[in-house]
Amino acid sequence: MILDGRTMLPSVSEIAEQVRGGHLRATEIIDRALGVIAAKDRAINAFTTVTAERARQRAKEIDAVVGSGGNPGILAGVPFAAKDLFDIEGIVTLAGSRVLASKSPATKDASAVQALEQAGAILVGALNMEEFAYGFLTDNAHYGRTRNPHNLERTAGGSSGGTGAAVAAGMVPLALGTDTNGSIRIPASFCGAVGMKPTFGRVSRAGMIPLAPSQDHVGWIGSCVSDVALAWRALSGEDPSIDDNRTPVVGLADGYFAERMSDDVRLALKIACDQFREHRMVKIPVPDTARAAAYAITSSEASALRLEDLRRHPELFDPSTRYRFLAGALLPAAWYIKAKQFQAWFRTQLEKLFDEVDLLLLPASPFVAPRFGEEVIELDGSSYPVRPTIGRFTQPISSVGFPIICLPIAGASPLPIGVQLVGRPNSEHLLLATALKLERALATSSR
Amino acid sequence: MILDGRTMLPSVSEIAEQVRGGHLRATEIIDRALGVIAAKDRAINAFTTVTAERARQRAKEIDAVVGSGGNPGILAGVPFAAKDLFDIEGIVTLAGSRVLASKSPATKDASAVQALEQAGAILVGALNMEEFAYGFLTDNAHYGRTRNPHNLERTAGGSSGGTGAAVAAGMVPLALGTDTNGSIRIPASFCGAVGMKPTFGRVSRAGMIPLAPSQDHVGWIGSCVSDVALAWRALSGEDPSIDDNRTPVVGLADGYFAERMSDDVRLALKIACDQFREHRMVKIPVPDTARAAAYAITSSEASALRLEDLRRHPELFDPSTRYRFLAGALLPAAWYIKAKQFQAWFRTQLEKLFDEVDLLLLPASPFVAPRFGEEVIELDGSSYPVRPTIGRFTQPISSVGFPIICLPIAGASPLPIGVQLVGRPNSEHLLLATALKLERALATSSR
Repeated sequence: MILDGRTMLPSVSEIAEQVRGGHLRATEIIDRALGVIAAKDRAINAFTTVTAERARQRAKEIDAVVGSGGNPGILAGVPFAAKDLFDIEGIVTLAGSRVLASKSPATKDASAVQALEQAGAILVGALNMEEFAYGFLTDNAHYGRTRNPHNLERTAGGSSGGTGAAVAAGMVPLALGTDTNGSIRIPASFCGAVGMKPTFGRVSRAGMIPLAPSQDHVGWIGSCVSDVALAWRALSGEDPSIDDNRTPVVGLADGYFAERMSDDVRLALKIACDQFREHRMVKIPVPDTARAAAYAITSSEASALRLEDLRRHPELFDPSTRYRFLAGALLPAAWYIKAKQFQAWFRTQLEKLFDEVDLLLLPASPFVAPRFGEEVIELDGSSYPVRPTIGRFTQPISSVGFPIICLPIAGASPLPIGVQLVGRPNSEHLLLATALKLERALATSSR
Repeated sequence: MILDGRTMLPSVSEIAEQVRGGHLRATEIIDRALGVIAAKDRAINAFTTVTAERARQRAKEIDAVVGSGGNPGILAGVPFAAKDLFDIEGIVTLAGSRVLASKSPATKDASAVQALEQAGAILVGALNMEEFAYGFLTDNAHYGRTRNPHNLERTAGGSSGGTGAAVAAGMVPLALGTDTNGSIRIPASFCGAVGMKPTFGRVSRAGMIPLAPSQDHVGWIGSCVSDVALAWRALSGEDPSIDDNRTPVVGLADGYFAERMSDDVRLALKIACDQFREHRMVKIPVPDTARAAAYAITSSEASALRLEDLRRHPELFDPSTRYRFLAGALLPAAWYIKAKQFQAWFRTQLEKLFDEVDLLLLPASPFVAPRFGEEVIELDGSSYPVRPTIGRFTQPISSVGFPIICLPIAGASPLPIGVQLVGRPNSEHLLLATALKLERALATSSR
């Protein structure tokens, strides 16, 4: 019922086209979005705030532009929501915490929110997340758990859990999140939506609460590749066309990236790979070290940002993140420095892989969305703790800041599962074009 | 006797000019340099290695070039030495430590050594230093103390103590060192020589043992500004002319930079300031914090580099640096991250000062070279520990990486004392031109 098509919103491109053409009023689509949110979010808990009044006001403005013959932009009338770490004017930015509840309301919107609205989109609310974006489950002690629209007993993933769930449930066709170690890619994979994080630094992070500035990326989730591409266009100003006639050579990684995953993830990878004319095996060096370095960088930087809060009122932290922050605050500087040195070296190593291939095809989550409370998972005949295993394939390649799209692969499992397409820096165009072709090929082959 | 002019070498420019003109053979000047070293270094202990054979061979090559009508370069035949952290082919680079004694000999010269030799200079040896360049006294437990040529009971300063002493004693007219928190400027001030550190990153650090990569600069000491300028030309490839007709506005800093110094340092500053047509008072913000940040960055990075050595054989470290390294290894990552954030902010603050002035004139060392074993000093009516006070004026402005020349000011004290001229990034030309004019003006006024 949660995924009932009759109560889902149309896609980004459909809405924008119809609003621009005067066939659909923005006020109408916003009312519809608010209605879907009201109907579904009691069960899902994707939203922490619904900005209904602001959205209706903005929709009137969009309709006025269309009414007077103007063009409100490539995202005209598209309802979207933003992870609750992006500033929204007049609202306190909580980042899933209670620690920040005593702060002043934001005096202006975050840069990414502004960019989408400048393209005609309409903000309808803020989305639930892990406290300070530090985790993969969105089982937030203060604001509740965000449930997976495909199965309410399962997590939507995290830390951008509300972002993934809001899109998957059809409450908005597009939502902003962030990705530090997989926080866009994991909820996209668990929720069966398309997630994108661009090249590090390509989309402004102004007006957001950081987790780990060395690795934080603005990212977003949409229900299909072309919607995600429209958001990229609005956020980057890049050429909208994502047609590309090249036949990309895709790289598959063996070793670490072929181990410790469920059979359906392995099947999803095979289904995806079969769509490419040519693939090559590549060797990603020392992925365990890469993941350890990403851990050290994240927890050091996250704790540095929260040091005063940890000293003054540790009791306000979510118990599930508190000890991660405290542990991070005890890490020695020498470890952080070594991790940063490794990060620089590792980036050059990954860049070299792209001499051989155009894209990397890697697993995203090592298994489908786990049940809340599920603590152990069986993979390749051994038992592993669920939580620390979720980021196995996203975290090692996070620190290098390459653009990545997480694409759902239908047919591998009853529950959604995604794969990662990784490009070289600033190759978003090829990445989007390839993801689009892959999406179309999969849709055809599954018919 | 140590400073007896009859046993001092001529200046860089004199040697190079005579060698190029065929009036002085390089072999002759090298023999003379080796003679001066043999005569004086038993008392001074500036050298850890004398590369006599290599120097004589190289001198023959220079003479052959001149003999065949060629030009060996702007430093033709100039004997120089390098702090024992620069690689010298065939020699183990010790960086004042025993920890590195088991390493293999260097397979090629450090970049800075190569650059000087390409300009015709001749390496005559390696110079004593604080262990791993971590300190201001060059009272090295393994390789002995380097004595100040102006008074053998006093330190030559550090960490490039051998660099300052070798030049001041006239054993070489030019010597390479490094400056992380003042390691060129302190020995230049204590030894009455001219020290220069260029803009961070401007001279290659390849082939040297780092202390703290965020702040390490290659630097050098010479006996006069024009000699230092010739070295800059050889190391940077920049225009040799340092004439400049601008009348620079000099900034003096009040507060921190006008307090806690000896009367003779205050007098030296006044003497220097009086030579400028115009000066303005500027405010350098939070210098105490800037110094603390430089401490945190230095000890974190230094310890990260030596972590394995500290674990495996702490007993091999010099007792005076061992506990600094161990303490650095215990610093939390969050402090380091905050220090790095501060460093970035502080750089923008200092850059703004240069909207008002062309150069800053600051004290270098807060007092003249202390006696070995002198632990307490009286300044402005209060007592301070000697060692941690030495870097008071050099360390806060080190992390920003601006070019600095330390120039001796005669007439303020019986023992040498220097002042710092600080420029905006990449303003070495103006800095050298101003230092040259100041040097000339002081020479005229003191006659």
